[in-house]
Amino acid sequence: MRLRLTPRDDSYYEMFADSANNLVIASRLLVELISEDADREAITEKMRACEQTGDERTHAIMRRLNESFVTPFDREDIYRLASCLDDVMDSMDAAVDLIGLYRLDRLPKGIIDQVEVLERAAELTAEAMPRLRSLKDLTGYWIEINRLENQADQIYRRLLAHLFSGEYDALTVLKLKDVIEELETAADAFEHVANTVESIAVKES
Amino acid sequence: MRLRLTPRDDSYYEMFADSANNLVIASRLLVELISEDADREAITEKMRACEQTGDERTHAIMRRLNESFVTPFDREDIYRLASCLDDVMDSMDAAVDLIGLYRLDRLPKGIIDQVEVLERAAELTAEAMPRLRSLKDLTGYWIEINRLENQADQIYRRLLAHLFSGEYDALTVLKLKDVIEELETAADAFEHVANTVESIAVKES
Amino acid sequence: MRLRLTPRDDSYYEMFADSANNLVIASRLLVELISEDADREAITEKMRACEQTGDERTHAIMRRLNESFVTPFDREDIYRLASCLDDVMDSMDAAVDLIGLYRLDRLPKGIIDQVEVLERAAELTAEAMPRLRSLKDLTGYWIEINRLENQADQIYRRLLAHLFSGEYDALTVLKLKDVIEELETAADAFEHVANTVESIAVKES
Repeated sequence: MRLRLTPRDDSYYEMFADSANNLVIASRLLVELISEDADREAITEKMRACEQTGDERTHAIMRRLNESFVTPFDREDIYRLASCLDDVMDSMDAAVDLIGLYRLDRLPKGIIDQVEVLERAAELTAEAMPRLRSLKDLTGYWIEINRLENQADQIYRRLLAHLFSGEYDALTVLKLKDVIEELETAADAFEHVANTVESIAVKES
Repeated sequence: MRLRLTPRDDSYYEMFADSANNLVIASRLLVELISEDADREAITEKMRACEQTGDERTHAIMRRLNESFVTPFDREDIYRLASCLDDVMDSMDAAVDLIGLYRLDRLPKGIIDQVEVLERAAELTAEAMPRLRSLKDLTGYWIEINRLENQADQIYRRLLAHLFSGEYDALTVLKLKDVIEELETAADAFEHVANTVESIAVKES
Repeated sequence: MRLRLTPRDDSYYEMFADSANNLVIASRLLVELISEDADREAITEKMRACEQTGDERTHAIMRRLNESFVTPFDREDIYRLASCLDDVMDSMDAAVDLIGLYRLDRLPKGIIDQVEVLERAAELTAEAMPRLRSLKDLTGYWIEINRLENQADQIYRRLLAHLFSGEYDALTVLKLKDVIEELETAADAFEHVANTVESIAVKES
């Protein structure tokens, strides 16, 4: 083990946990939005608030980084982890925005599978963040996120095949494709978060 | 403050400023191209020359990096900043190329808003580059670039909604979407430049 | 020259060479798949096996990194190089998958040019990996990869123009565009590999 000769700044762990918990809320809003009798306007409003909370938390981490003399791990890694968490939020928010922008009243059923994978990935990420403190027991987290990303990929490809099955006209395909691609990007972004955590663990171990 | 015990190599600041000034020229060519009575062929030619100048400058920075023993900040950051500036140029050049390739004689009016944001971002970036020397007064720059990127995002989404308003057939939507996406990528790339500058300032402060 | 006071771990060079050789196999499967009388099902099966081999090699590098105390160059660079090689494989695999998923029985002839550039890039990358050991004679490799990427770009744009020439309906354009974009992403990913090698050489020189 490595001795730490400098006082630790524990606030980062809490800030990362806050950011990840915010992603759990956002992913549940996505699940709600997909359901048939959803009050879309109200959910879109909540999503926007969620995205703003996320932005504030990202900036709080950046400000803290500016003021800290000692950081628990490399400054660049803190920076990258905060950015990756922010990317997840941006994609989930963009998907909700596109659904409204394109006035997509009916969505293919398979989208629920995509969104449930995102919810699970958000929960796993939120559970893992506090373990950054010890850098222990993280292997299971990134293996599971990688498995979920593979699953998300399969769901995404199945949805793509469905879009081109002949049921939809070209313009509708274009619109729906944008939405499911944004959700796939969110799944990828969860993997980038996990990769960043893995690379921190590799460096600090 | 940090004492510098090594001689500084100031040529980097000039090379970054040159690259950014080249982006100002490119963004003004884009504004010109959008205007109704534009001589598209002549502008496309100028854009190509601009892109080649950009490439030469990027390579000059890389060569300098190979030959330098001491650099004003981390080698990787110099490398990343040069790459990000190059990415902006690539997207602006690609947008011009696509307009020609797809023979898009008429463009939606809203594109002018997108392009004017790029011009403003280029100007701000060019003004900020010389301040890398002192790493002072950069906060205003990256806050403003982030604000511009948000504005670009709104313009982009408004243009997307317009594309699907029923005015265009599916193939035209596909073509125009490629162009406005490339311009949106350029706006994002300006934000990556600003993020790199921010992360250099965070590390060196 | 820099003295090395620590024992070198040569296994990394072999693992990177293995990964790159696997990309040569994958690129040749792509060439085979494009030919008119191809047994697509058999090739898709082989591609899947190839992608799994790639994944195993990537994970072997990551595991080795976890266990190594001394690495031949920066841990993060080893991590990034392994990830970039993996990205190439993912894009080539995704292209094959989309061709099957969209049931694209006929592909535009120009795709063979795209795929042959990928094959050449894979071969060059595989030849360059063993030279990471000495970090010598790598300049020619990354100049050539950059040239190939420019060529790939021109082929890609020519294919795009062809897609919109009026020969295809909107849904077919959408499908074919996804395939050629994935192949273009693979060409870009080869350039990212070369850029990573270049940045390792810059740092270690």
